[in-house]
Amino acid sequence: MNNFGIAIHGGAGTILKSEMTSEKEEAYKNALQAALDAGYNVLAQRSTSLEAVEAAVRSLEDCPLFNAGKGAVFNAEGQHEMDASIMEGKNLQAGAIAAVRNLKNPVSLAHKVLQFSDHVLLFGEGAEIFAKDHNIEFETDDYFYDQYRFDQWQKVKGSDTFVLDHSKEKKYLGTVGAVALDKEGNLAAATSTGGMTNKKFGRVGDSPIIGAGNYANNKTCAISCTGSGEYLMRSVTAYDVSCLMEYKGLSLKDASDEAILKRLTDIGGDGGLIAMDAQGNICMPFNCEGMYRASKNQNETIIEIYK
Amino acid sequence: MNNFGIAIHGGAGTILKSEMTSEKEEAYKNALQAALDAGYNVLAQRSTSLEAVEAAVRSLEDCPLFNAGKGAVFNAEGQHEMDASIMEGKNLQAGAIAAVRNLKNPVSLAHKVLQFSDHVLLFGEGAEIFAKDHNIEFETDDYFYDQYRFDQWQKVKGSDTFVLDHSKEKKYLGTVGAVALDKEGNLAAATSTGGMTNKKFGRVGDSPIIGAGNYANNKTCAISCTGSGEYLMRSVTAYDVSCLMEYKGLSLKDASDEAILKRLTDIGGDGGLIAMDAQGNICMPFNCEGMYRASKNQNETIIEIYK
Repeated sequence: MNNFGIAIHGGAGTILKSEMTSEKEEAYKNALQAALDAGYNVLAQRSTSLEAVEAAVRSLEDCPLFNAGKGAVFNAEGQHEMDASIMEGKNLQAGAIAAVRNLKNPVSLAHKVLQFSDHVLLFGEGAEIFAKDHNIEFETDDYFYDQYRFDQWQKVKGSDTFVLDHSKEKKYLGTVGAVALDKEGNLAAATSTGGMTNKKFGRVGDSPIIGAGNYANNKTCAISCTGSGEYLMRSVTAYDVSCLMEYKGLSLKDASDEAILKRLTDIGGDGGLIAMDAQGNICMPFNCEGMYRASKNQNETIIEIYK
Repeated sequence: MNNFGIAIHGGAGTILKSEMTSEKEEAYKNALQAALDAGYNVLAQRSTSLEAVEAAVRSLEDCPLFNAGKGAVFNAEGQHEMDASIMEGKNLQAGAIAAVRNLKNPVSLAHKVLQFSDHVLLFGEGAEIFAKDHNIEFETDDYFYDQYRFDQWQKVKGSDTFVLDHSKEKKYLGTVGAVALDKEGNLAAATSTGGMTNKKFGRVGDSPIIGAGNYANNKTCAISCTGSGEYLMRSVTAYDVSCLMEYKGLSLKDASDEAILKRLTDIGGDGGLIAMDAQGNICMPFNCEGMYRASKNQNETIIEIYK
């Protein structure tokens, strides 16, 4: 049996201990623990890493503390427009959806795209029709309503300002994700987000983009990113880690650090990623104040927020 | 003065000399020559590679022979839904749009996104609103109508069949693109497509995805891909060429060949790419019967279709 395990994140950005109450910290840690357990239990039952990352991300989507699924931020029209992706390391199969509304668990639709579609990326209403064809669960607008998110939006509504969920003014952070290695030695990665508060023009970030916000390849690693999406897209960050390992021979740690602490940082982006390789090594680098993150394997459980 | 120049493509796939009349071949070659000249003249006037690739792709979009802009294929609803992207090698700035309708030149909207938006990728109606704000030219549905495209769609309409514009049954191929190096030594890449005939569910392929169908970086190369989009996305092909050069030290030719003839081929994808490096070298590999392609620098002009 190999060193199977899972790592998850709930977003990175300006997370300061000075602005956190012990109750809130506890709530975040409990939510991370629950998602970690959801994914780890799948692995322990000899199910696939693909199913494990879906289970962990579903748990994070169901928690209003994180900007994905329930608790997703409001766009400029006062709607919740969500993106997600999932990838399987053994065959490079991938599924992703962007700008979908009213889906309880966007990551599960991404998984259905991987399983049942000839395509990789489905957008908007078309993706919602595909979801209905595959009995994916929908929810009404009020399911996604969160007072904190609504107040965030009210502050910038009608302006040209959009708020990345990890920018200075706020504490709720964008994007959730999971990476896992199963007992068969297969890697998988999943990422899900509600995007940016007051986003306009059908903006789509890195989360549903294979290679940018999400990537998995048994030869190298599984990656899920979070942070300033536009910089992660221009840096093709998730695939960059894989290439640094495969072509330059770097370790998972050196490749992850290079992608975030050097290359993303050099072009002015901020954020972080969770990474796992085929030996079960886990890295979770970020270049900002904090990242909600956790990992679990047979040896240890880690749950952390700050640097 | 460096070896400035430009390369363009008009799609790759089942292009057989046995199925081509000399009149059609002549028409394709004239269209490629016109696009090549449009881009090269921009470079010769000391304008940027970014402006050159936009000019070349606009010319290809305006020609109904190619599946982009005028002449874009019909989707399942009988509409033309187009994607495009553009990237600048000196600063990794990028702009892209997906699933937009009635835009005369999608590549010009991608350029406006690069110039005037804080975002990289805008989708659907949101992107169209952004286009109106920036005085981008729209056309009515009949501008995009092409009898051959309509007949293609009629054959598969109402079925679950979608037709990639380079699949066995047809001769008109998907995607156009350009890469260029200007006199200042800056690289740029642009890609534009009408997608697949009878496509459903808001399917988006590699063309608007930075790293998959399009990439430019002065440190390495500028790339525009064409072919089976889902495989190009899963292989992150455009950025793969750049990584093979930067991390593995391969030449432009070896990196391009590895990405198309080995890695894309190994997972069952078909297609090709055009590539240019900062020294002005040009490569145009593909793993199928043909690719409409052309290049021009101070030394030579190449216009080719078959292997």
